[in-house]
Amino acid sequence: MKKVLFATTALIATASMAAADVRISGYGRFGLDYNDRNSNKITDPNYNGISETTITSRLRLQFDMSTETDGGVTLGARFRAQAESRDNAPGGAVFNGARFYASVGGFTLGVGNIIGAIEGMPGLYLETKSAGMGIDGAGFHSLVTNVAANVAGQFFNWDAYSSAGVGANGLEVLYSAGAFGGHLSYSTDNDTVVGGVRTAIGGDRIAVNLSYTFGDWTAALGLQDSDTIGEDKTVLTVAGKLGQFGVRLAYADNDGIDKFGIYGNMDIGAASNILLFVTSEDAADAGAIAQGRDNRDVTVGNDRGGEGESYGIHYSYDLGGGASFEAGAVKSSNDQTQVQAGVFFTF
Amino acid sequence: MKKVLFATTALIATASMAAADVRISGYGRFGLDYNDRNSNKITDPNYNGISETTITSRLRLQFDMSTETDGGVTLGARFRAQAESRDNAPGGAVFNGARFYASVGGFTLGVGNIIGAIEGMPGLYLETKSAGMGIDGAGFHSLVTNVAANVAGQFFNWDAYSSAGVGANGLEVLYSAGAFGGHLSYSTDNDTVVGGVRTAIGGDRIAVNLSYTFGDWTAALGLQDSDTIGEDKTVLTVAGKLGQFGVRLAYADNDGIDKFGIYGNMDIGAASNILLFVTSEDAADAGAIAQGRDNRDVTVGNDRGGEGESYGIHYSYDLGGGASFEAGAVKSSNDQTQVQAGVFFTF
Amino acid sequence: MKKVLFATTALIATASMAAADVRISGYGRFGLDYNDRNSNKITDPNYNGISETTITSRLRLQFDMSTETDGGVTLGARFRAQAESRDNAPGGAVFNGARFYASVGGFTLGVGNIIGAIEGMPGLYLETKSAGMGIDGAGFHSLVTNVAANVAGQFFNWDAYSSAGVGANGLEVLYSAGAFGGHLSYSTDNDTVVGGVRTAIGGDRIAVNLSYTFGDWTAALGLQDSDTIGEDKTVLTVAGKLGQFGVRLAYADNDGIDKFGIYGNMDIGAASNILLFVTSEDAADAGAIAQGRDNRDVTVGNDRGGEGESYGIHYSYDLGGGASFEAGAVKSSNDQTQVQAGVFFTF
Repeated sequence: MKKVLFATTALIATASMAAADVRISGYGRFGLDYNDRNSNKITDPNYNGISETTITSRLRLQFDMSTETDGGVTLGARFRAQAESRDNAPGGAVFNGARFYASVGGFTLGVGNIIGAIEGMPGLYLETKSAGMGIDGAGFHSLVTNVAANVAGQFFNWDAYSSAGVGANGLEVLYSAGAFGGHLSYSTDNDTVVGGVRTAIGGDRIAVNLSYTFGDWTAALGLQDSDTIGEDKTVLTVAGKLGQFGVRLAYADNDGIDKFGIYGNMDIGAASNILLFVTSEDAADAGAIAQGRDNRDVTVGNDRGGEGESYGIHYSYDLGGGASFEAGAVKSSNDQTQVQAGVFFTF
Repeated sequence: MKKVLFATTALIATASMAAADVRISGYGRFGLDYNDRNSNKITDPNYNGISETTITSRLRLQFDMSTETDGGVTLGARFRAQAESRDNAPGGAVFNGARFYASVGGFTLGVGNIIGAIEGMPGLYLETKSAGMGIDGAGFHSLVTNVAANVAGQFFNWDAYSSAGVGANGLEVLYSAGAFGGHLSYSTDNDTVVGGVRTAIGGDRIAVNLSYTFGDWTAALGLQDSDTIGEDKTVLTVAGKLGQFGVRLAYADNDGIDKFGIYGNMDIGAASNILLFVTSEDAADAGAIAQGRDNRDVTVGNDRGGEGESYGIHYSYDLGGGASFEAGAVKSSNDQTQVQAGVFFTF
Repeated sequence: MKKVLFATTALIATASMAAADVRISGYGRFGLDYNDRNSNKITDPNYNGISETTITSRLRLQFDMSTETDGGVTLGARFRAQAESRDNAPGGAVFNGARFYASVGGFTLGVGNIIGAIEGMPGLYLETKSAGMGIDGAGFHSLVTNVAANVAGQFFNWDAYSSAGVGANGLEVLYSAGAFGGHLSYSTDNDTVVGGVRTAIGGDRIAVNLSYTFGDWTAALGLQDSDTIGEDKTVLTVAGKLGQFGVRLAYADNDGIDKFGIYGNMDIGAASNILLFVTSEDAADAGAIAQGRDNRDVTVGNDRGGEGESYGIHYSYDLGGGASFEAGAVKSSNDQTQVQAGVFFTF
């Protein structure tokens, strides 16, 4: 069992900076998830055969390949394999769709499994290891772009780098210059054709974000225009620091359904951080009702619909060596409660 | 085709022993498998369209990730991808379910694709590269915990690290202190729910092993208690050395069906080793018959049922560089004969 | 985000040359594909819901494992994972079937996902990064062993290393001595047996190539004998250099259907290369018509059948650092036009 130890701080130097390389990195996380949507007591109204408390885990292995041309352009690509378990349903892993890029100066062209301009905008995700609550994000109700519970396609309805799937197969341009950042993304789907007959028109998604940093503060605007009903978005975020406090505000108009969020976190001592958030989302508006996107009166399992407040608290303790203890609790606007605790480590 | 050579004896040192790392390792093996259950002569009673002699091969690529916290706890994970061919049916590979662990001192907590306490008990598997006979284990009839042929779920009916699947998604605790070792494992399945109705109750498996080493000898006891009928097990093993001879005895009560095994191996010269084994398993008992686990009179293909003796011989020759020649022949209690020979190499 | 940089020119030395190692390499390529077979205009006769111009991309990650025995035999294996997008249908990646080998002196035994003697013969593929035209090969009409368009199984109907599948699961022997090279490959399929009844007989493929190099010129002969109708092949190639010009001639008898090819390329300045090719293939002969392999009058989509000329032009510009700009256009004998341009980089 002799093995190579590829330590993450080692750098095997080469004569030329233009040499191609492969970087291996990733993270592991595992812990327990309490989810009041699950029950393995057959007498419970929400019985689904899954214990309320299950293991949540993910192992991500990531490969980053790149080279630099004589002209100073970096050409590269990334792909990942990640094995996950949620709700006691473990999975193996395949590699996701690849993202390719060419970058020079502050300019980057991305192709394939793109990041996406909404996904990549500053101030959208939580400042935690999972980018959500607890160990696995706990539903990501903290995002102002996710509304009205996990129904009617209003969750993650934007182009985003897919870690376990193939992604948008789009094109994107990122640009940064000093305090300014911009990001434009585009993708289109093929029409669905069955037996020579079109059964669905492939839609386009185009999105942009613009951001500006002034001192400790960053403001960002994101817009998405989609051929698919209910996917147009306008997003605004402002994030910054007030001494040891991190403060963030976010707002999104999700094709007529508003959602606001306020987020705060503070360091406690040398190794701890506590984060709090509250979001408030509207009920579906007349337009969404007309489009059938109204979930107020739809009961999905024991879900009463998603309008109202979501709030959560998260605690992180740095264990050193790239590892940390993470715990979080969230009550979401669709009356779901999740509590998670476990460890996270990078490599 | 410039490439990095990651040699297995190299260690890229880092300033801190706490740094995270990824280790890449694995093995390849390939050879020929003669199996009298296969036949591509249409006139044979056991015709199944597969040649009696086929390629057997496996390529395993394994990633071990770990880091150490400031408090001296090692956090880590493992996953593998392995491509296999048996019976001329080659396969590609995906990553299996991940096993996570936290260890400190002699104590280890495992989560996910756990090893399992029966699987991990000392003295269960053969002392060969495949842990069975020949190149690919040749059916693993040598294990006292595998009884009554490949029918009625009596093979590999315990929680075990799955190299090609997702495993048990369980929890386990391993402890070692001096000569003593202990291992406790637990897993549970979700209920099967179809259209809101429970169609199957998810079962628990709990297992434990305890072992003690005195001089050249190790004795181990393993127990499994399962909600699934026929899976309760009591296993005893004793293994040690008598000069150049390795000797091992094993016994298991497989929910009423006894199986005994005796195993011996000896080094010949500097590079060779010969291993012999005989096992004897009972016919199904009254309990198993009542539960429908009796295979004595069941003919599966040309399988007459599994009671009686299995025996085998294995030869290994060390080729140097982590490679070896491996050959083995086994006649199992269900009248199957397999002969395999080929090479094995680690990296 | 500390990462290991595994630079491609680095060699981590070991005390013994016999040490096992793993080499990681691969390439990325991405660009645009214009294909007149695609149309997302519903009024077009060739409407298929896919835009005429789409992203074509591939990311290949390859692992080569090997060790050397004390006797000087190299034992090794290779497998790959590659994610691809063609026609706006992106994919993820799994590992392909493994190829194992043992080599000593000029002799190599290959097992599993073999290269194959037709696939591996000198002078068959184009001298480009994709081994075909443009970014992704653009249909590989340049090969004299691909005839009569993508119908009736006359494309890639020989054993070849499969990058995304499991391959032939065969055996092969390669031998080279000075100017001479030889390659013999064999594979067989299992019979298809449904409910104990044979529904299809598994066929054998045996192939051989012989090559000889004299000065700047290499001549090669390839033969394939297959149990499957239409797969017998005789292939001849001659390739060499006339100053700055590369010249190649190829001919194949594809079980009665002849195809000729002439290929030329020249360096322009320090970094550019232009390549041209023309192939001419016969209509199906009487034998192929009798066997139902005649595609002259078969219309598949807007495909009029494959007899006649295919021709193409390819341009490559070396960008340094293992990267290049690649562009190509091909008009194939079945009236398909493809134009592709993009970048290619190795790592």
